Amino acid sequence: MDGLVSGSTVRVELGDKSYEIAIAPGSLDELGFPMAQLNLGNKVLVVSNPAIADYYAERALASLTNAGFTVFSHLIPAGEQHKTLDSIQTIYDCALEHRLERSSTLLALGGGVIGDMTGFAAATWLRGVNFVQVPTSLLAMVDASIGGKTGVNHPLGKNLIGAFHQPRLVLVDRQVLKTLPEREFRAGMAEVIKYGVIWDLELFKQLEKQTRLDRFEAVPPQLLNLILTRSCEAKAQVVSQDEKEAGLRAILNYGHTIGHAIESLTGYEQVIHGEAVAIGMVAASKIALKMGGWGQNWDQRQLALIEKAGLPTRIPSEVTIDSILESLQTDKKVKSGRVRFILPYFSNKTFNKERRGAGANAEITDRVSEDILREVLASLGAS
Amino acid sequence: MDGLVSGSTVRVELGDKSYEIAIAPGSLDELGFPMAQLNLGNKVLVVSNPAIADYYAERALASLTNAGFTVFSHLIPAGEQHKTLDSIQTIYDCALEHRLERSSTLLALGGGVIGDMTGFAAATWLRGVNFVQVPTSLLAMVDASIGGKTGVNHPLGKNLIGAFHQPRLVLVDRQVLKTLPEREFRAGMAEVIKYGVIWDLELFKQLEKQTRLDRFEAVPPQLLNLILTRSCEAKAQVVSQDEKEAGLRAILNYGHTIGHAIESLTGYEQVIHGEAVAIGMVAASKIALKMGGWGQNWDQRQLALIEKAGLPTRIPSEVTIDSILESLQTDKKVKSGRVRFILPYFSNKTFNKERRGAGANAEITDRVSEDILREVLASLGAS
Repeated sequence: MDGLVSGSTVRVELGDKSYEIAIAPGSLDELGFPMAQLNLGNKVLVVSNPAIADYYAERALASLTNAGFTVFSHLIPAGEQHKTLDSIQTIYDCALEHRLERSSTLLALGGGVIGDMTGFAAATWLRGVNFVQVPTSLLAMVDASIGGKTGVNHPLGKNLIGAFHQPRLVLVDRQVLKTLPEREFRAGMAEVIKYGVIWDLELFKQLEKQTRLDRFEAVPPQLLNLILTRSCEAKAQVVSQDEKEAGLRAILNYGHTIGHAIESLTGYEQVIHGEAVAIGMVAASKIALKMGGWGQNWDQRQLALIEKAGLPTRIPSEVTIDSILESLQTDKKVKSGRVRFILPYFSNKTFNKERRGAGANAEITDRVSEDILREVLASLGAS
Repeated sequence: MDGLVSGSTVRVELGDKSYEIAIAPGSLDELGFPMAQLNLGNKVLVVSNPAIADYYAERALASLTNAGFTVFSHLIPAGEQHKTLDSIQTIYDCALEHRLERSSTLLALGGGVIGDMTGFAAATWLRGVNFVQVPTSLLAMVDASIGGKTGVNHPLGKNLIGAFHQPRLVLVDRQVLKTLPEREFRAGMAEVIKYGVIWDLELFKQLEKQTRLDRFEAVPPQLLNLILTRSCEAKAQVVSQDEKEAGLRAILNYGHTIGHAIESLTGYEQVIHGEAVAIGMVAASKIALKMGGWGQNWDQRQLALIEKAGLPTRIPSEVTIDSILESLQTDKKVKSGRVRFILPYFSNKTFNKERRGAGANAEITDRVSEDILREVLASLGAS
């Protein structure tokens, strides 16, 4: 993409809603240039949280101003507990105060929470304004910022309120990860491992070669670049084939079915999203093992990667099996009352030689029996 | 459409989001049949207000139940003052309580306020569930229920929060209009006259032939049928060509630019939407007259129709010109700080012989000078 320091570009193909993910170190300072090429209106409202804004808002705002935009900013306190309609109201108020128009842009400078909320505000202010994602967490870079899922939490369930609203641009600058708390870096790594399992065996193998995956400083720049590029490619390919999650896209929920339940039952703080996904992947792997089509060695290799990333692999003991089963019933992924699981699938029968693309390495099923589910949850420490 | 008593069907062509407007007297009792053909999930949540529910909910629910749906209902107090995010929250809570799934349906049984809110809840619950419109006001039948504009009001502006979310079906039963308050019947007639001016000269002439348009009982069934069918056709044709209001669709805002300002400045109760649109059309007509391209005779013919419908034609004297100008600046239709007006346009230069379709009879312009605007507003009674 013109005007950006060298890097790679991944395109999300969605007809007239197509957009690019620009992956380039240092690109935060060049943000204004690719945006200036998108035929956006003059006004940009940057939404962030106080900690991230302290680090990066000045640079982002300077780049936007230099590119000719009129820039405003708005802060929302950090944390999942602020991912509410009340926070969205504060974005609306700010949009009104600065007279944002339909051609204006909401820009998310932050992690998944800021991205999801800014995107939802962009989807619903004036029935939709432009949206740009500048993710600052590993999880947002490889997952949340791509694909147009936006939303907030209902007091009784995560992301129950939301809309599909694709960004016009996603800009990934890996250098901002150096200020990311280590726990959040590890949480993002869970989604990377997910792509390795369900979509990209080569990525999986590259991760296996690395001794440590638990800190930004432990991962060499070349590997981090490969992680970002191939994860974004995986996400972009899946989203391009199934934007609204009518089918294939559901495989990206690998680890998320039980993961969401654990997050919800522990109040979204004790176990954060990526950690819950890690536990959820361990659980899905055990379920797949019991149901066939997935081997003991694959289960162990995945477990080893998750441990190498410093992620939890067991369910907190105060979480009960019954409460998980109850929680699964309110999940968005329920269909006709049946819970749908994403299971890894490497059996010879559907062996995909490239092990990349086409949903070859995961399947969606609602045929997990309650017995198997209870057994697996108990084996992972649920009470 | 199968299973419906005889009537006409208007199709809104929007690719895989296409749907039908079924116009048939008595069809409320047959509602379940066309819905059963749409491959919807089992659960339907009917949203209405207490007065409308008293009249019609039982019949709607019976028809849905007979067709095999599991039905729930939820009431929201009547009135524009309840068109808020807080009311949307109550729909979310009800959707959660009844475990609505992505394949479930939200059905709006009511006027524009219920339709806009139910549609917004449907657009944003689980990132989008099915939506069906059963409009009970004339305004909702000919305008609000068609085209997928959904939303709620911000304390400082109408419909500033919203989303595009097309219904799967719109079912119009003119018999329910007999319980509609007369004032609301007249308000709906404003939108009908609008189509006559900007899109369908034949409709305009048919309306002129009728002595009174101010009460349901005064309008013969055949004319009411023509009004419903041709208004829905006009709306469907415009929406099919420009779903997201990138261009043409803006002509449907004829009368709405100044109309919205008047509604907003009088608190949405003193002057209701259709009345405000009537005043807005009178104003737009006067502006067009001063700018050329629109004749004195057309201005008078439109005025006569508006009066025949018992609608107001003057701005309440307590509304100031300055407050209108200020209010216009927060309108969604502002682009690059300039207010866009829809002006009627019957000049010979672009004379459309059929006077139907293709946006021939209205134009969108941001070149209305403040002087002309002030003159016209003063002439209509603004202080």
